[in-house]
Amino acid sequence: MTDLQDLRTRVCALHTELTRWDLVAWTSGNVSARVPGTDRMVIKASGVSYDDLVPEHMVECDLHGRPVHDSGHSPSSDTAAHAYVYRALPGIGGVVHTHSPYATAWAARGEPIPCAVTAMADEFGGDIPVGPFSRIGDDSIGRGIVATLEHHRSPAVLMAHHGVFTVGATAKDAVKAAVMCEDVARTLHLARQNGPLERLPQEDIDALHDRYRNVYGQK
Amino acid sequence: MTDLQDLRTRVCALHTELTRWDLVAWTSGNVSARVPGTDRMVIKASGVSYDDLVPEHMVECDLHGRPVHDSGHSPSSDTAAHAYVYRALPGIGGVVHTHSPYATAWAARGEPIPCAVTAMADEFGGDIPVGPFSRIGDDSIGRGIVATLEHHRSPAVLMAHHGVFTVGATAKDAVKAAVMCEDVARTLHLARQNGPLERLPQEDIDALHDRYRNVYGQK
Amino acid sequence: MTDLQDLRTRVCALHTELTRWDLVAWTSGNVSARVPGTDRMVIKASGVSYDDLVPEHMVECDLHGRPVHDSGHSPSSDTAAHAYVYRALPGIGGVVHTHSPYATAWAARGEPIPCAVTAMADEFGGDIPVGPFSRIGDDSIGRGIVATLEHHRSPAVLMAHHGVFTVGATAKDAVKAAVMCEDVARTLHLARQNGPLERLPQEDIDALHDRYRNVYGQK
Amino acid sequence: MTDLQDLRTRVCALHTELTRWDLVAWTSGNVSARVPGTDRMVIKASGVSYDDLVPEHMVECDLHGRPVHDSGHSPSSDTAAHAYVYRALPGIGGVVHTHSPYATAWAARGEPIPCAVTAMADEFGGDIPVGPFSRIGDDSIGRGIVATLEHHRSPAVLMAHHGVFTVGATAKDAVKAAVMCEDVARTLHLARQNGPLERLPQEDIDALHDRYRNVYGQK
Repeated sequence: MTDLQDLRTRVCALHTELTRWDLVAWTSGNVSARVPGTDRMVIKASGVSYDDLVPEHMVECDLHGRPVHDSGHSPSSDTAAHAYVYRALPGIGGVVHTHSPYATAWAARGEPIPCAVTAMADEFGGDIPVGPFSRIGDDSIGRGIVATLEHHRSPAVLMAHHGVFTVGATAKDAVKAAVMCEDVARTLHLARQNGPLERLPQEDIDALHDRYRNVYGQK
Repeated sequence: MTDLQDLRTRVCALHTELTRWDLVAWTSGNVSARVPGTDRMVIKASGVSYDDLVPEHMVECDLHGRPVHDSGHSPSSDTAAHAYVYRALPGIGGVVHTHSPYATAWAARGEPIPCAVTAMADEFGGDIPVGPFSRIGDDSIGRGIVATLEHHRSPAVLMAHHGVFTVGATAKDAVKAAVMCEDVARTLHLARQNGPLERLPQEDIDALHDRYRNVYGQK
Repeated sequence: MTDLQDLRTRVCALHTELTRWDLVAWTSGNVSARVPGTDRMVIKASGVSYDDLVPEHMVECDLHGRPVHDSGHSPSSDTAAHAYVYRALPGIGGVVHTHSPYATAWAARGEPIPCAVTAMADEFGGDIPVGPFSRIGDDSIGRGIVATLEHHRSPAVLMAHHGVFTVGATAKDAVKAAVMCEDVARTLHLARQNGPLERLPQEDIDALHDRYRNVYGQK
Repeated sequence: MTDLQDLRTRVCALHTELTRWDLVAWTSGNVSARVPGTDRMVIKASGVSYDDLVPEHMVECDLHGRPVHDSGHSPSSDTAAHAYVYRALPGIGGVVHTHSPYATAWAARGEPIPCAVTAMADEFGGDIPVGPFSRIGDDSIGRGIVATLEHHRSPAVLMAHHGVFTVGATAKDAVKAAVMCEDVARTLHLARQNGPLERLPQEDIDALHDRYRNVYGQK
């Protein structure tokens, strides 16, 4: 198996995490990955059901979102946004987009999620910010994502009136961020329904985030 | 396999989407399809559990909801409403009815779902409207569905104090509309719990809907 | 297979509906059935995990809740309540008890569920009432169930600060009532979060309930 | 199979209950058990996906949380908290930690769950209390758990701005407490959204809890 085919297989399989953790409805979310060492990416084909997804549906594109072969599959309608992120942020190897319901509820109001629980300090290092509303179709969404993320530690951004984009060193890291984003969006939605939310002190957020990045998981 | 048997097989299988996406409880939703090129339709038999459903439970009826054979199965008690839609709207090939919980919550209050997120502009082209309350049993529900849909782009209508009806060029399109209707009903229910909803500007809704219909998916 | 063994097999299998429809946590719900033509019932053994449940865990008891054999299994701690229902209501062949979350939320407040959607008129013929709080351990809960149900058409009752009991001609009917009770409890909880609930007119409730009992399902 | 290997197998398997009952996202919860008759414990390895978990991922540690062998796996970043509980409470054989969403919503507000339904009196014998906020990394969390639990009958404690810890005579008992904690956290969250909660009278709580401990389940 070539490296590209292996990457397609892994990116294809990561879509099952989107359905498992209830992040998507019908075909409404997608995962992409940079092809390491190249100016290319692979991304889910547009409108294909998760049940039917095979590695060949991961369409290889350049970093302007143009398919590099005529594979017979059109890439996701969100491809321009993913591509812009890879162009602007060289350290990013994976991008995920969902309309997961609790996170998108915060996005619909244009309200950031305040860092009020330790799991959020760990994974996001602070609030999950809101990016600007943009119509789909050109670089606008990508620019909004990058402009928002550069002022935050968070690998997740809530695009106003739209949904969630997450980034990571790998596609798997970006999927993890999408799962955790929905989890904390839900917990803090529930918490706020019965009272105001109190943000953690910045000093604690900093300490928790630093520890999580350096101590958590296997060496 | 005849075309009719093939249609029955596909309509039967689409009921698994109703349970997979949590749109139904016990036996409370149904899918129908027009038999192409005829004045007939097939629809789920009344009160049969989704576990037990086989293609033979898709009862062939005329477009007044009367079974055309004595198959031993009574069609859904919602058959008259489905049949009216097919009589009134020649372009419609599939109809779905559910009591999916978030959408039915909006219906119970008789409140349309405002078009406040891009996924809703894409799929519904505007608000999801509310149709009148009618008792089951004659053409009243069908008339209410058609009278409401003709003033909106939305393929979904919330029938007051009742539930959801969706339509599509095919039964699969109508099922997709039912899945997406519950998804946006949930997201906007959650959004509204912590603040007022702001509708997208009409110009953006128009642009998003136009693009979605003409660009999304595979050619 | 004897009739009793067949009944045990069916009652055992019905417990999978409690987990499938998210009505129970850990071991917190149970199904029983009257043994037709006798003064006996079968009911789930106490504290046994649903994964481990086999027909032999359906303990045969008299209608005072006393095991009629030494089977090695203690019957559910709710057995006295089930038994009282069978003694008092000869037409009842099945009883179900759950703490399903949305219905128990109404029960925790001691608030009946108003008949505000057609599915509720169909299945419950009106509001789902609230019965009195009683401690477990003697006939008190059973008396509260029966005293409440005799003034309503509903096969479900919310026992204050406790949970749900449903009854039916068969155990399967009682399970269906438990599934539908949670479904309408959820829909009307959600509806009420964003506005007041409006009960359906009594005339419509009566017409819908009558039709549902006489027309719905297969002959 | 040695006793230790058997314990590892059982603790590993109990993690499937965390995903089944929706208590965890990605890798965010863990189960541990005391090795009976020793000053050791086994606990999930840090950051390993539940899908990939095998008994060898249950890392054997002393009761200060230090691995006793170089197994190649780092123990959970919550190990110090678990270990402190075993040191301080000799009767405890199992500890569970989750960020289950409804319970963590109460924890985010620092609000105890009032004992307002009978299932809660049964399992928790009163309110589920809140423990102090502490940063991860030393004995602070463990001390907060123990100091809070010693004033309550509850086997569950909500750690402020963090999540849930539960204890039990065995790891399975602690898992059951975690499942029931989320269940009552959800039910009472829902109940409270539409009105104030009324605590059960203390006399009833005492009677229910006593009965549950002495009568429920198989002998």
